[in-house]
Amino acid sequence: MTVRHINPEGLHRSPAFSQAVVVEQPAKTIYIGGQNGVDAEGKVVGPTLGEQSLQAFRRIATILESEGGSLANVVHWRIAVLDGLSFEEGVAAFQQVWDRADPPPAITVHFVAGLGPGFLLEIDAVAVV
Amino acid sequence: MTVRHINPEGLHRSPAFSQAVVVEQPAKTIYIGGQNGVDAEGKVVGPTLGEQSLQAFRRIATILESEGGSLANVVHWRIAVLDGLSFEEGVAAFQQVWDRADPPPAITVHFVAGLGPGFLLEIDAVAVV
Amino acid sequence: MTVRHINPEGLHRSPAFSQAVVVEQPAKTIYIGGQNGVDAEGKVVGPTLGEQSLQAFRRIATILESEGGSLANVVHWRIAVLDGLSFEEGVAAFQQVWDRADPPPAITVHFVAGLGPGFLLEIDAVAVV
Repeated sequence: MTVRHINPEGLHRSPAFSQAVVVEQPAKTIYIGGQNGVDAEGKVVGPTLGEQSLQAFRRIATILESEGGSLANVVHWRIAVLDGLSFEEGVAAFQQVWDRADPPPAITVHFVAGLGPGFLLEIDAVAVV
Repeated sequence: MTVRHINPEGLHRSPAFSQAVVVEQPAKTIYIGGQNGVDAEGKVVGPTLGEQSLQAFRRIATILESEGGSLANVVHWRIAVLDGLSFEEGVAAFQQVWDRADPPPAITVHFVAGLGPGFLLEIDAVAVV
Repeated sequence: MTVRHINPEGLHRSPAFSQAVVVEQPAKTIYIGGQNGVDAEGKVVGPTLGEQSLQAFRRIATILESEGGSLANVVHWRIAVLDGLSFEEGVAAFQQVWDRADPPPAITVHFVAGLGPGFLLEIDAVAVV
C-alpha cells in the first residue's frame, strides 16, 4: 500500500492541508464517525471551540492508535463548525496536535446551522493505515 | 476482506453507532450518494421526518441488496437534517430498519440550512460488501 | 479493479447522478479535499456561483489528470452551496465540464450556513483511478 499527498501544479500549496491524497491498495481503511469535544463518557469537555477541537482531534488520535496508527494516517477529514463561530481556535488546536513533519490530510470545512446538543464542531475522517 | 467495528478504550459506547469501522482489503466498496425520502419516481413520500427517514434508509437497503448486501454493510453514513427539526423521528426510523444484532456504522450528523426542494434529510453512505 | 455505476430497480434514474458506485479492489483511491472557486494562488476567481463552480470542477480535473485520470473517475462528490443561493449555475457548470457519455458519480448536496471567506460553494470528492 502506498499513500501520496499531492498538490498538483496549478493548485496552491498550504501547510494546513493537501489538495488530495492518493491511496494505492491493498490498505487498511478506517472510517471515523463524527467526533465531538466529548470525554470518555460522552460529556462535552468545555464551552469553547478550542477545547472541543482539541478533544475531537485527541479522540481521532485515540481511535487511530488503537489500530496501530496515528493522526498522520488521516487522508481526509471533514470539519463542521457551528455557524457564527470562527474556526481560528480549531486551527490552533490542530497545530497543537499535528506534527508539521507529516504531510497534512485533504480537508473539507463547512459552517453548519446546527450540531448535537452542546457541540461546537464535529470532525469525521477517513484514514489509511 | 475483514470489517471490524471499533470503540477503543477511552471513547464512549453507544448502541446507535460505532466510533469507527476498520476495513481491510481487498473489499468491494460502495459509495452511496445522498438518499432522500423519495419514491421510485423521485417524488417526496411525505411531509414528516419520520416518513422521509424511513424511506431514505429503505433506499439504501435497496441499493445494498442489489449488490448482495444489506444495511449491515454500511460502514459510515452522514446524515444531514434540515435546521429547526429534531432528529428523533429519524432515530425511530433507524430503529425500525436496523437489526440490533449488527454492529452499527460510524455516523456523522449535521443540521444544515437547506436541502433539495421538499427534503427534510439526506443520508449518504459508504458500505463494504 | 472494476467500477460500476448502479441505479437499482425501484430507484429513479437521473442523467445528473448515479444512485451509487461500486468499486471492487484493488484500486487507486483518491480523496480530494474541499475545492473552491479559487485560482492557482488561492484567490477567489469571481463573485458568481457559476464561475466558482466551474473553477472548482476544473481544480478537481487538474488533480485527477495529475494522477492519470479525469473527472470521469470521480465516484462520489459532496457539494456544499452557501445558503440562499440556487445551485442552477452550478448545474450549468457541471454540464460544461462533464462528458455525458460517462456514467455520473454519486452525489450529495447540502446548503450550508457558511463557508470560507468569499466561497459560494465547496466540492470534495472520492475518485478511483
